Amino acid sequence: MITDSILKEAAGRVKPSAAEADNLKNTAREIIGRIDSEAARLGFNVHAIHVGSTARDTWLRGKRDIDIFLMFPPETPREQLKLEGLQLARSVSDDYEEKYAEHPYISAIYKGFDVDLVPCFNVPDASKIQSAVDRSPFHNQYVLTHINGLNDEARLLKQFMHGVGVYGSELRTQGFSGYLAELLIIRYGSFLDTVKAGANFYRGLVIDVEDHMDPGVKHPEPLIVIDPVDPKRNVAAALSEQKLYEFVDACRRFQKAPSLDMFFPPPVEPVDEPELLEIIDDRGTLLLTITFRAPDIVEDTLYPQLRKAEESVVRMLELHEFKVYRSGVWSNGKRCAIVLEMLVWSLPNIERHLGPPLEQREHADRFRDKYPDAYVFGYRYAVDIPRKYPRADELIRARLTSCALGKQVSESIRQDFIVLSGTSVLSVGEGIGEFLRELLHRK
Amino acid sequence: MITDSILKEAAGRVKPSAAEADNLKNTAREIIGRIDSEAARLGFNVHAIHVGSTARDTWLRGKRDIDIFLMFPPETPREQLKLEGLQLARSVSDDYEEKYAEHPYISAIYKGFDVDLVPCFNVPDASKIQSAVDRSPFHNQYVLTHINGLNDEARLLKQFMHGVGVYGSELRTQGFSGYLAELLIIRYGSFLDTVKAGANFYRGLVIDVEDHMDPGVKHPEPLIVIDPVDPKRNVAAALSEQKLYEFVDACRRFQKAPSLDMFFPPPVEPVDEPELLEIIDDRGTLLLTITFRAPDIVEDTLYPQLRKAEESVVRMLELHEFKVYRSGVWSNGKRCAIVLEMLVWSLPNIERHLGPPLEQREHADRFRDKYPDAYVFGYRYAVDIPRKYPRADELIRARLTSCALGKQVSESIRQDFIVLSGTSVLSVGEGIGEFLRELLHRK
Repeated sequence: MITDSILKEAAGRVKPSAAEADNLKNTAREIIGRIDSEAARLGFNVHAIHVGSTARDTWLRGKRDIDIFLMFPPETPREQLKLEGLQLARSVSDDYEEKYAEHPYISAIYKGFDVDLVPCFNVPDASKIQSAVDRSPFHNQYVLTHINGLNDEARLLKQFMHGVGVYGSELRTQGFSGYLAELLIIRYGSFLDTVKAGANFYRGLVIDVEDHMDPGVKHPEPLIVIDPVDPKRNVAAALSEQKLYEFVDACRRFQKAPSLDMFFPPPVEPVDEPELLEIIDDRGTLLLTITFRAPDIVEDTLYPQLRKAEESVVRMLELHEFKVYRSGVWSNGKRCAIVLEMLVWSLPNIERHLGPPLEQREHADRFRDKYPDAYVFGYRYAVDIPRKYPRADELIRARLTSCALGKQVSESIRQDFIVLSGTSVLSVGEGIGEFLRELLHRK
Repeated sequence: MITDSILKEAAGRVKPSAAEADNLKNTAREIIGRIDSEAARLGFNVHAIHVGSTARDTWLRGKRDIDIFLMFPPETPREQLKLEGLQLARSVSDDYEEKYAEHPYISAIYKGFDVDLVPCFNVPDASKIQSAVDRSPFHNQYVLTHINGLNDEARLLKQFMHGVGVYGSELRTQGFSGYLAELLIIRYGSFLDTVKAGANFYRGLVIDVEDHMDPGVKHPEPLIVIDPVDPKRNVAAALSEQKLYEFVDACRRFQKAPSLDMFFPPPVEPVDEPELLEIIDDRGTLLLTITFRAPDIVEDTLYPQLRKAEESVVRMLELHEFKVYRSGVWSNGKRCAIVLEMLVWSLPNIERHLGPPLEQREHADRFRDKYPDAYVFGYRYAVDIPRKYPRADELIRARLTSCALGKQVSESIRQDFIVLSGTSVLSVGEGIGEFLRELLHRK
C-alpha cells in the first residue's frame, strides 16, 4: 500500500544510521565521564546524565545536539550550583559560551556536537522542582520507560510536524515540542494512529496520559496535554490555535492523500519581484511594510514583541477606519518587518469627530462652542472635520511610536523605521521572499 | 431685555387675530349645529363636539383645521356607528372625502376650513375607550381645564418646535405632538420655563403630570410623558432620540443666544449643482442615491418603510466591507430616494471567504475539496476569492431587491429603481436640494 511505502521511505530517512547513533552515544558517554571524574577530583557531589531526544533515541538523523544535565543535591545553595556547575561544564571543551535560561549554563562544541551543559537540582520527584530545568530529567525518564520501542514512530511524527510547519515550541513557531510529539505517540501507539486522532483534535481537547490532571488548574490554551510528571502543567501550553488547526488540517490531508512531500517538502521558493507585482496587481490590495533593525534579543523575546507591535498597528489602523486584510511579522536576525496587506489604505478628506453625549451638559456646551458646525447625532454631538491621516502610511509614520510595542522593539523603532509600499518589501532582507510566499498563501 | 422682545414679537405673530378666532369658532359652532339638528331629525342619539388645538385655543395663526367628533353612546354597535357616523358627517358639506384611521371618517371642506368629522364612542372615562380616537375628547377636556390661560405660551412652544424642526408626531418627523407641547406648558408653566427644563431633558426622563403612571407598563422610548388621562400611555411614544436631543440642543441654543429666527427660520435654500460639486470635492466622499417611484401610501406608512429600506441597504453595504458615512431618506410624494454618503465605495479584487470551523469535519472537508487554495485561519478554513462586487453601486444594483424592504417600497423597487452617483441626485425631484442641505449639515 502507498501509505506503507511512504512511511517506510520516511522512516529510513529520519532514523540515524547505526554509525551516527554509536558515535553520538559514545560522545555523550565521554562527556559524562569527563564531568563525573572532574567532579570526583574536585570533591563535588555531582553526576552528569544525558537527556533530550538524543538520550531517548527519538532524534532526527543529522541532529547533533547533546543535552547533558549536571545533577546537584537538592539542598545545594543556588549560588554554589551556579559556580560549581559552570566550573564543571567548562571542563568539557575550550570552545564554549555561557548562556542564560532560568540560571546560567554552558553551550559547548565538542567533537562536532552542540553540547548544552545544564546544572540542575536532583529533586526526588517532579513536584519538588526548584527550577524549570529540573523537570527535564523526569521527562526523559518518563519517555524512556513508556515509549516501548515506538522511537521511530516518534521520529516520523516529529518529521511530519516539521514538514507541515508546526514543529517547535519556541515562541516564533508556537507549535509542538519534541516531548509533546513523544507523548502523543505514547498515547496513540503509532504515527498513523496519532494522525488519525490528530485529524479530529479540537479546541479544549484534554489529553491526560496518566489520568491525573489537577482539576484546580484551569488551562486556557487550545490543546491541553497534561504532563505525565506534573498534574498541573500543560505540555502544549505554547501551541497556538492556528498551529493546532494547521496540524489537524495536515493530518486530514495526509489521510486523504498521503505523500512523502508532507515529511520532506521542497524548499519554499522566494517570491521575486515580477511575481509579487503580478500578485498585487491581481488582488488590487496594497502591501505596506514597516521595517526596522532587529534588536539584539533571542527569538523567544523578539517574536512576542513583534506580534504585540503587529496587533497594535492593526488596531490603530482599524480605529482610523483603514482595513487590514492580513498581516504578519518577520525577522532574519538583522532586520524585522511587519507586513500588512491593506484592503482600504486611503480615505476621504473628512471624518466624523464624535462629541460628548448631550446629557453631559458642560462637556457638550464646550464642544458646541468649539465647533460651531456641530450637529446632533443620536444622543451625542458630532462634527465633520478634516481627516488628519487620509492615508494609512501617513498614519503609521506619524503615530507608530505611540503604539504599544514591546520594550526592545519599541527602542529599535524609536531609533529608526521605514515604511515601504508594494514590492519594495523585497529589499528588507534575506528570507523575506519565502516569508511572503507563505503569508500570501501563494503556492 | 432681548428675550422679552423676541417672545413678544413671536407671540404676536403666532396668535390668531380676534377676527380669525371668531370666524373659526363661529364656523365650528355652525358645523356642530348642523350635525346635532341632523341627528335629531334622523332620531340618532348623537351629538357633536369641537376638539383639537382650535377648540383649545392653542392653534397657530393661519391654521384652518377644525376637528369635530361625533359622540355615540358607548353601547352603539360598531357597524351602526360607522354607518350613522358617516351619514351625519356627509351632511356638513358636499365637498368631502372618506378617510380611514381605526375606522372611517370624513374630511370635508367647509367655508374654507379643513374639517375632520370623526365618529367616536362617548365613553365615561379614558380607561374605557373602544377605539384610539375615543381618547381625544378626554385630551381636549384635560387641556381645557388645566391650561389656565397659558394658551399663548403653548403657541410659542409649538412655533419654536416647528422652527427648530422637531414639531410633528407623524412618522415622517418623529417629533413632538401638539398635545405633548401643551402638556409641557402645563407642567412647566411657561414657554421659557419649558425651554429651561428642555435644555436638560435626557433619555429615560419621566414626566408624569398627574403622578399616576402604571408601574407595570415599561416604556422603552427616549422620553416618557405619562398621559394625564391614561396612566398606561406615553404621550411621547413617537419621539425619536434624535428629535429629543435636537430639541435639547435648540433649548440650549435659545438660552445662549435667543433669536426670532429660531421661531421663524428663513426658508432652507436648496443646494444647487455647483455647491454640491464643491461639497463633494471638498469632502472626497461619494454620494450614491437609490431612487424609485413613491408608492401610493400615506406618509405614516411610507416613512417607516423607507427607513427600513435604508437600514437594510446600509447593513448590506457594511457586510460587504463598504463604509457609509451618513444616509437619509426622502420623498416628495412622487419619487423616493435613499441617499448614501460613502466613505469607502470601491474595494480590491479579492475578498476572504470564510469556511467552516475545522471542528465541523464534514463541512470542513467539503470546503477544502471545493477550494484547493483554502488555508487555516484561526479555527476555520478560509480562501481568497475574487470579490463579486468590488463597487458599492454594483452591489446595490445586483442585490437591492433581496434586501428586507417594506411591502410597498419593495413592490416599487421591484418594478424599477435607479442608482445615481454624485450630483445627479439633484435630478430626482422637487425638494431634494433642501433635503441635501440638511442631510449634509451644510449651513
